[in-house]
Amino acid sequence: MKKKEVLVLEDLLGSNKKIAAGIRRELTSKGILTINLLSSPGAGKTSLLEVISENLSPEFKMAVIEGDIETERDAERIRAKGIPAWQIVTGGACHLEAKMVGKLFPEIPPDLDFLFIENVGNLVCPAGYDLGERLRCVLLSTPEGDDKPKKYPKAFATSHCMIISKADLAPHLPFDAERAKREALEINPGLEVFVLSSLDGTGVEAFTAHLKKALHELRRNNA
Amino acid sequence: MKKKEVLVLEDLLGSNKKIAAGIRRELTSKGILTINLLSSPGAGKTSLLEVISENLSPEFKMAVIEGDIETERDAERIRAKGIPAWQIVTGGACHLEAKMVGKLFPEIPPDLDFLFIENVGNLVCPAGYDLGERLRCVLLSTPEGDDKPKKYPKAFATSHCMIISKADLAPHLPFDAERAKREALEINPGLEVFVLSSLDGTGVEAFTAHLKKALHELRRNNA
Repeated sequence: MKKKEVLVLEDLLGSNKKIAAGIRRELTSKGILTINLLSSPGAGKTSLLEVISENLSPEFKMAVIEGDIETERDAERIRAKGIPAWQIVTGGACHLEAKMVGKLFPEIPPDLDFLFIENVGNLVCPAGYDLGERLRCVLLSTPEGDDKPKKYPKAFATSHCMIISKADLAPHLPFDAERAKREALEINPGLEVFVLSSLDGTGVEAFTAHLKKALHELRRNNA
Repeated sequence: MKKKEVLVLEDLLGSNKKIAAGIRRELTSKGILTINLLSSPGAGKTSLLEVISENLSPEFKMAVIEGDIETERDAERIRAKGIPAWQIVTGGACHLEAKMVGKLFPEIPPDLDFLFIENVGNLVCPAGYDLGERLRCVLLSTPEGDDKPKKYPKAFATSHCMIISKADLAPHLPFDAERAKREALEINPGLEVFVLSSLDGTGVEAFTAHLKKALHELRRNNA
């Protein structure tokens, strides 16, 4: 990269970081746990949110910010579950930025428990942008292959959880969950790993239990 | 985007276009058909190249340029098939650019029939960068879902072929090939659509026949 390009990129990332820090402070003080979901297109982020919504309801209140390049489809799927959802259409941009989330702030109900942000389907670019989340979770779906963590390391290096999704398809695939897990943990030994299927429900309970625990810790620290 | 950012981006894309045009001229004059493969991570680009190599050999000579953020894994898989392969490791960058391909020029054998470029696994960013290819093919794997063309339109709008890959998994999935095809054709009515499985070989013959025909046309135009 030429010098001018580097400067522009640093400026963008610097201002994104500042906005993200403000969002995190604000949502944390309200006792809301914010989760940024990252993955390739079609790894099952929206399907996971659909089953989570059934698991958390009615005890917990959740809402979803959907990021897509085009269409309002994902927000419509979430709203069909009775969950508030806002669609950010990036119109070409390959990732969400903190300022896009910030613009929705006035609309976010203050009595939420969980705010999920479903990023644009892209295993590369979203990893570089803090959105003010408390937890970042990367999904790796079994059909994508067990060799992906080392090929797309940043998403795994910057996440708190890794979710191996579409576990129901594993019997039909050359997918070694142990290899995927081992590679991801070599990149980031602190990753919490979940293996789940939104289709048959396997592992969903363990993941939501983790989210509830994280919410509890956030509020205990606030108290 | 601020004005400075727009200017920098235009400058980058402008110089990429010029380099790409030069690459296309050079490879076309040598009678080499260049194919740029685009898709999400794990949609089966490398597996497709493996089966294509078996189908084209020994009648045709092919070589592969592999683009990945990290690791030399894909080039190693191709070389294991006896096919020359060069790995471009982008070290974080989310797409290949024409200048990266241009740097490999001195190493490309002049007697090739097909030069495949496997782009970084990303359904968004690579669509914006001409690499000097003659054909651009986008893969959509069945597990990604039939709703992806409208959500990631640029890759479909700028391609000549769409390959619905992992057709063998379709019986286990809520995937409607007709819907995916219809949506893609609404974006780009000129798309040639292929449904194939690299695992069981379905549809591979039809795709390679298309490539051979395109090679024949290129050389007829050269004559």
